[in-house]
Amino acid sequence: MSHIIKVAIVQHACGDDYAENLQRSIDGIKKAAATSADIVLLPELHTGPYFCVEAHTRHFERAEPIPGPTTDHFGTLAKELGIIIICSLFEKRSIGLYHNTAAVLDSNGEIAGRYRKMHIPDDPGYYEKFYFTPGDLGFKPIQTSIGKLGVLVCWDQWFPEAARLISLAGAEILFYPSAIGWDPSDDQAEKDRQCEAWITIQRAHAIANNLPVVSSNRIGHETDPSGATAGADFWGSSFICGQQGEILAQAPADAAAVIISDIDLERTDRIRRIWPYLRDRRIDAYQDILRRHIDDE
Amino acid sequence: MSHIIKVAIVQHACGDDYAENLQRSIDGIKKAAATSADIVLLPELHTGPYFCVEAHTRHFERAEPIPGPTTDHFGTLAKELGIIIICSLFEKRSIGLYHNTAAVLDSNGEIAGRYRKMHIPDDPGYYEKFYFTPGDLGFKPIQTSIGKLGVLVCWDQWFPEAARLISLAGAEILFYPSAIGWDPSDDQAEKDRQCEAWITIQRAHAIANNLPVVSSNRIGHETDPSGATAGADFWGSSFICGQQGEILAQAPADAAAVIISDIDLERTDRIRRIWPYLRDRRIDAYQDILRRHIDDE
Repeated sequence: MSHIIKVAIVQHACGDDYAENLQRSIDGIKKAAATSADIVLLPELHTGPYFCVEAHTRHFERAEPIPGPTTDHFGTLAKELGIIIICSLFEKRSIGLYHNTAAVLDSNGEIAGRYRKMHIPDDPGYYEKFYFTPGDLGFKPIQTSIGKLGVLVCWDQWFPEAARLISLAGAEILFYPSAIGWDPSDDQAEKDRQCEAWITIQRAHAIANNLPVVSSNRIGHETDPSGATAGADFWGSSFICGQQGEILAQAPADAAAVIISDIDLERTDRIRRIWPYLRDRRIDAYQDILRRHIDDE
Repeated sequence: MSHIIKVAIVQHACGDDYAENLQRSIDGIKKAAATSADIVLLPELHTGPYFCVEAHTRHFERAEPIPGPTTDHFGTLAKELGIIIICSLFEKRSIGLYHNTAAVLDSNGEIAGRYRKMHIPDDPGYYEKFYFTPGDLGFKPIQTSIGKLGVLVCWDQWFPEAARLISLAGAEILFYPSAIGWDPSDDQAEKDRQCEAWITIQRAHAIANNLPVVSSNRIGHETDPSGATAGADFWGSSFICGQQGEILAQAPADAAAVIISDIDLERTDRIRRIWPYLRDRRIDAYQDILRRHIDDE
């Protein structure tokens, strides 16, 4: 028995021009739809530059409500092409309240649901805590016409807890729209370790939860308007892997791409028979996961 | 600032003869000690064949108390060579009560502590639930003369919760003695996926917790005395990786080996400054990790 769906990722650079970014996404989605893809994932915050490279109030102008212009655009396109689109945007929830949100447009054009990024980074060049309130919707899969999607966002990918929670709640595929890049001042060995770590930990979420993982990223160099950093070289390398963490498709580090793979949702059932982790979790002994740190007693 | 320690793994085949297995371990440990290694990890249940391939009461004869003959042997050796030894054995805790236990012999020959395997597998050819009561000591690091060791055992390696908990409790290095192999009847692609998944998920524990990981395995084909299965081809591939999951040393899949690497314990502090996951864990939103499954409400 099998239940094959076709999954796509659109990877591209994102500049300062909203309309141009939108068009790049649309062109990629149309390519994916031409192969009969059922669902397509875009990079994180794909309608603009990665503005969190600096902390500046003018960037709040980029935020928009859901529904709003971006979800309207992609909703119309989803319906026209009969494809599910996972887009990512700077959500203005209320005056003074913003989130880093992924919205899922189902193939009928409706908003199937949203996920508000739960783990918010804040590092030189990634000042997300300035802009985004941590999500308050928890780790809940989004029901769509093809199944329950476990949508998480970027920094969430470093936390095994996020993948575990959304999997326990019934997610059938994990999605991670990302915007992650190299610091141009790092040496090549450090760059290699970072990109490899990014791929490895997400493949491990596939393995630990026996679910396919779909992870997108943008490409290209973006400057830091504040001049405080050398900007970022976004490392692309978007990939799709299967329930055992095996790579099914991968984009290059430095070029726009549309990657596509069949994934068999029924295979999760077969893999969980040979790797029955859910049977053996020691939930009687995991309480301290809820602690910040286990200090010497 | 750096705090370099030298870590070793002894990988070998394990046959039916206790004395011969012991000698293989001793030979490997002496090689490691000759390079001034501070600590050496042996494979899981290294004093005998992987008897859990079948469920048979005669194998309870292999169990022994701690302290007992095996910890006496390795304790004496640890003191003689001035090296810490992590051995793995079938612990007889009481009449009718057994565990799959790792014992740490400090370089003064004393037992620094023990870890009782918390997650117990049970699959065709891996009938561990018949022999081993799940551990009741929790995920506590073991204090030694070189630092706090996060010792876990084999099947634990598939559970991100185990690595997280022992890391939160202050472990400075994670150790996984393993006995894991291929089903000879699987095709090569499946074998490759399984071994790669085993490596990937452990590297991910290094990444998620910013700790070095040291994982050992045995080699060789072992038959199934019951005739129920085709036995197992243990896949070796023992490895040491650093705080970003980067491979530092790796043994072959099919040959005995002693692998050694320097690791810098101070690097954890540096990596946790650029990858500050502990800062951002959403402990307010992780409660459902303690549930078996999150059923539809």
